[in-house]
Amino acid sequence: MHALGIDIGGTKIAGALVANDGTILAETRRPTPAADSHQIVETVAEMIAELRISGDAVAVGVAAAGFIDAERANVVYSPNLSWRNEPLKARIEAKVDLPVFIENDANAAGWAEYRYGAGRGSKHMMMLTIGTGVGGAIVTDGELFRGGFGIGAEFGHMNYMPDGLDCGCGQRGCLEQYGSGTALLKSAKQLVASGAATSARLAQLEKDAGELTGAQVYQAITEGDEGALACLTNLSNHLGRALASLAALLDPEIAVIGGGVSAVGDMLLDPIRESYLAHLPARGFRPELQLKQAELVNDAGVVGAADLARASVA
Amino acid sequence: MHALGIDIGGTKIAGALVANDGTILAETRRPTPAADSHQIVETVAEMIAELRISGDAVAVGVAAAGFIDAERANVVYSPNLSWRNEPLKARIEAKVDLPVFIENDANAAGWAEYRYGAGRGSKHMMMLTIGTGVGGAIVTDGELFRGGFGIGAEFGHMNYMPDGLDCGCGQRGCLEQYGSGTALLKSAKQLVASGAATSARLAQLEKDAGELTGAQVYQAITEGDEGALACLTNLSNHLGRALASLAALLDPEIAVIGGGVSAVGDMLLDPIRESYLAHLPARGFRPELQLKQAELVNDAGVVGAADLARASVA
Amino acid sequence: MHALGIDIGGTKIAGALVANDGTILAETRRPTPAADSHQIVETVAEMIAELRISGDAVAVGVAAAGFIDAERANVVYSPNLSWRNEPLKARIEAKVDLPVFIENDANAAGWAEYRYGAGRGSKHMMMLTIGTGVGGAIVTDGELFRGGFGIGAEFGHMNYMPDGLDCGCGQRGCLEQYGSGTALLKSAKQLVASGAATSARLAQLEKDAGELTGAQVYQAITEGDEGALACLTNLSNHLGRALASLAALLDPEIAVIGGGVSAVGDMLLDPIRESYLAHLPARGFRPELQLKQAELVNDAGVVGAADLARASVA
Amino acid sequence: MHALGIDIGGTKIAGALVANDGTILAETRRPTPAADSHQIVETVAEMIAELRISGDAVAVGVAAAGFIDAERANVVYSPNLSWRNEPLKARIEAKVDLPVFIENDANAAGWAEYRYGAGRGSKHMMMLTIGTGVGGAIVTDGELFRGGFGIGAEFGHMNYMPDGLDCGCGQRGCLEQYGSGTALLKSAKQLVASGAATSARLAQLEKDAGELTGAQVYQAITEGDEGALACLTNLSNHLGRALASLAALLDPEIAVIGGGVSAVGDMLLDPIRESYLAHLPARGFRPELQLKQAELVNDAGVVGAADLARASVA
Repeated sequence: MHALGIDIGGTKIAGALVANDGTILAETRRPTPAADSHQIVETVAEMIAELRISGDAVAVGVAAAGFIDAERANVVYSPNLSWRNEPLKARIEAKVDLPVFIENDANAAGWAEYRYGAGRGSKHMMMLTIGTGVGGAIVTDGELFRGGFGIGAEFGHMNYMPDGLDCGCGQRGCLEQYGSGTALLKSAKQLVASGAATSARLAQLEKDAGELTGAQVYQAITEGDEGALACLTNLSNHLGRALASLAALLDPEIAVIGGGVSAVGDMLLDPIRESYLAHLPARGFRPELQLKQAELVNDAGVVGAADLARASVA
Repeated sequence: MHALGIDIGGTKIAGALVANDGTILAETRRPTPAADSHQIVETVAEMIAELRISGDAVAVGVAAAGFIDAERANVVYSPNLSWRNEPLKARIEAKVDLPVFIENDANAAGWAEYRYGAGRGSKHMMMLTIGTGVGGAIVTDGELFRGGFGIGAEFGHMNYMPDGLDCGCGQRGCLEQYGSGTALLKSAKQLVASGAATSARLAQLEKDAGELTGAQVYQAITEGDEGALACLTNLSNHLGRALASLAALLDPEIAVIGGGVSAVGDMLLDPIRESYLAHLPARGFRPELQLKQAELVNDAGVVGAADLARASVA
Repeated sequence: MHALGIDIGGTKIAGALVANDGTILAETRRPTPAADSHQIVETVAEMIAELRISGDAVAVGVAAAGFIDAERANVVYSPNLSWRNEPLKARIEAKVDLPVFIENDANAAGWAEYRYGAGRGSKHMMMLTIGTGVGGAIVTDGELFRGGFGIGAEFGHMNYMPDGLDCGCGQRGCLEQYGSGTALLKSAKQLVASGAATSARLAQLEKDAGELTGAQVYQAITEGDEGALACLTNLSNHLGRALASLAALLDPEIAVIGGGVSAVGDMLLDPIRESYLAHLPARGFRPELQLKQAELVNDAGVVGAADLARASVA
Repeated sequence: MHALGIDIGGTKIAGALVANDGTILAETRRPTPAADSHQIVETVAEMIAELRISGDAVAVGVAAAGFIDAERANVVYSPNLSWRNEPLKARIEAKVDLPVFIENDANAAGWAEYRYGAGRGSKHMMMLTIGTGVGGAIVTDGELFRGGFGIGAEFGHMNYMPDGLDCGCGQRGCLEQYGSGTALLKSAKQLVASGAATSARLAQLEKDAGELTGAQVYQAITEGDEGALACLTNLSNHLGRALASLAALLDPEIAVIGGGVSAVGDMLLDPIRESYLAHLPARGFRPELQLKQAELVNDAGVVGAADLARASVA
């Protein structure tokens, strides 16, 4: 029994036909027509039609950033796509004769890791997605945790630093401001602006590329540049402290670290683990979770959305 | 089908025979023989025998503070009773011919509120127990959330204030140090020590009683004393900020505030609600939870433990 | 013996002929030709010539924002006027036959309050200027405190909140981000954006005026609007906590609160005093400072600059 | 012209006859009869008599911990010696025919470093004394900064971490709780308690010595032990952040680090310098201070007290 997964991002829409062992049988991509929500529905419908040529599917899972309601039908609020109370399920179902289920993108990715990736074999898992923001997913006793209104696991907006940095959500001190790829890039830029000796390599990469982006920071990290590694360690310290707090609340067996920043692997995970252990309440009196790198980075959204949709009609 | 609930506290053990509508049919209490874990088992067995005289029971639920393992059989660690890896289920079952299930006390209390108290009718609830420490319970989609190792929902040990006050768990800045009854009493004592004008009533109550305890602070609060209310508002501000963070993570429909401090009712709940709203991420774009006072204060532990035990054998 | 005072602000330049009892004998104002530092010198020279018609002067004091060197000759760095290592004393002296002394504007204002305003009669005073930023001045044993490089008393950039809000100086958590008029306006805007019930009056004033500026917030405060007062109290709590810390370091007899925000008077000073007392280390074992509102608000810069210049040639 | 210096500590009283080039001509020590303030005066008088045998002196400077009033005559409050409003000058002068001047001990030590030690040649210096607590001294334009009530430069009680660790002064988050030798020892003990792999050497030293004190931590640091160095670096990070804040306020040319912990030298100073630079507001636009280790560690109190007393009668 195959299912379709669609992942609507800020810049592109990815789609795949996914087998029930998580294998991708066919895939396709389009730019996101972000300004026009009708056009997004149109594009998604075309992608579904295209993917169905490769095989039958029993349902469609659609992953999108934002608050999805508990019925998995409506996008209550999406910061990237300017949606508010968008009846996305109904709009897509009006164009295709398949049941459609809307999922939060971090939830879909987390579910894919749980089923087919780094979380395989556990029953209680959490995932932190370290990208532009900080996303989260919780699996508890083998079920995806959605919360009472469908919008739980917003790890990026837990209050990490009282009266701390301003966040786009209207609050101060959200974890996202200390633990995201955006925070990493910002600290690298501040290092360059300070003119400190350790900023030399980053400054050179900025000069060569015309600007400093995640790509330059990633390169400097993989080269072992002292300045870039200091920024990464600082990020990891924050994430490890947050992880210890989340462990006290959610007590997972496994924590999976995903998102673009996780590509640096153990250079990120080792200092997160160290900081997690240093900040774990009642350390020594409780089991310690396993920390793992995500395995399905680019495909997690479509695979997870497809799998959750299939399970809904099974 | 009745069940027995036993709640082992630091100073007393409470027991009850509980009907399947949550009604208490019989109850009994004993002092906790805290220094001697064998004697605790003996006392619990005697209480079970005594309660069974009043009616048949299908199972026994035993609530205790601390980390209970995922099998609900062993107390991994209990700060009050000096237990480490105590096989409590086996020890009690050796003395009574009924299945026994061990529960964390805050989980048991939260479950009782969910089934028969302030959380009735919801499917996603969380409860904060504001007493000596800060306990927690999570109900998600109608199930008690236990976590991968059985020790989730430790709200009192989420990192609330990085590099903040020392906590008995070995960390700094745990919510317990800002939001518990102990924190409330400490701030009242600091107010008296400062000699500020607003401390006059508390100082008088301390003088009359010989010492300042929760009872005096409670009295001053109910009298509307300015100094005591300032301490309570400060506590509520912290709890409201933590609640907003927990809402981003757990997204419950209802948050129940229980524990000894909750007896002051709206004088506590109103400022918590105000602070929760002021600190809610993306406020206005998401549903807001209902905040309620616990209803079963003294009986919650035994009722919840009994109900969870009954459900386990049903 | 009269002296001239010139105060170069971001939008206007004020000048005055000041008698040795602090009385202003003549004054003049011009817009700041901010883009052109040569034109600023030209304008200042014209203003000096104009003011000398009203009476003889022995020296010129020039107040400007930024880091002034210990020789009081060069502007090391001025954020508003894009000056770096500007030999302002030499440039102005080349055009007028009077000795010229450059002063930091907050220092000049603080000195004026010490000599002729709220600090009269003390020997140890500090002043916090609550405007766009947070400026400071220290008078110790009757002398203006300048520091080793001429740039002390930067109260706005003491680290108030570790890992807190980003500051334009490149750091995080500077007092300026919590205690300035800019911070007050920002919190008012956040209140309006939240749509809370207490934001109604501010929202109305914003609608009427087309935008929310300090003028609208000031109006709402003086009307006693609950929302605006909550923002002001929050600001005052931060300032009182910083003041307690500064008292431990600088131990002044008097703290003067000046700058635009101080115009609201006791509505600002009362909660600052309350917060100062609540946060004072070893309260009850040390003398408490007097907290006073500045008296010379608009003229403080020119009067202080003139007086310091006169003293330098006396 | 010689003078006498007396340094009354919590466990011993040191005394010296000091020449006007800072040389110690004679010295003596006694245990502090801490419980009995009359006995302390008696002991000091005996020490003065003894030291005068070695040469004439024009005045006596007496250094003591605590708040000394602006007349340098009375101990307003001393935490170690239970003095409140003790007329120490009058009591000692009643027994010896020399003028007596009371000084805060950190001020005396700072003045000695300024005149004869690491601060020689500067005009604006500050000193942080890292011992049981965190003491401070400020020299501005060649004068000791005392503040309006004689109790300035209490660096240990600047608010470093809002809502942070409890301090003996009644407040929370004072620098002393993060940057003192006591804080260093506490973090070493917490490391041992955690059972982490890096705690092995400290645990061994504790076992050998029977308890963990500063001596064991000092030994582990000088051995290059990873765990002890991590504790020291953490301390240095806090001190560097505080130093950056103090630089914005006080703008000294030189900061001297003294007290018992400073004995480890560059292992302390290097990470302090790094943290100072990382947290300096407007770094790159202002001169940077020099960071130096104190030179007169044990003698600083008596030398400084003597020198200040001599200057008072000169």
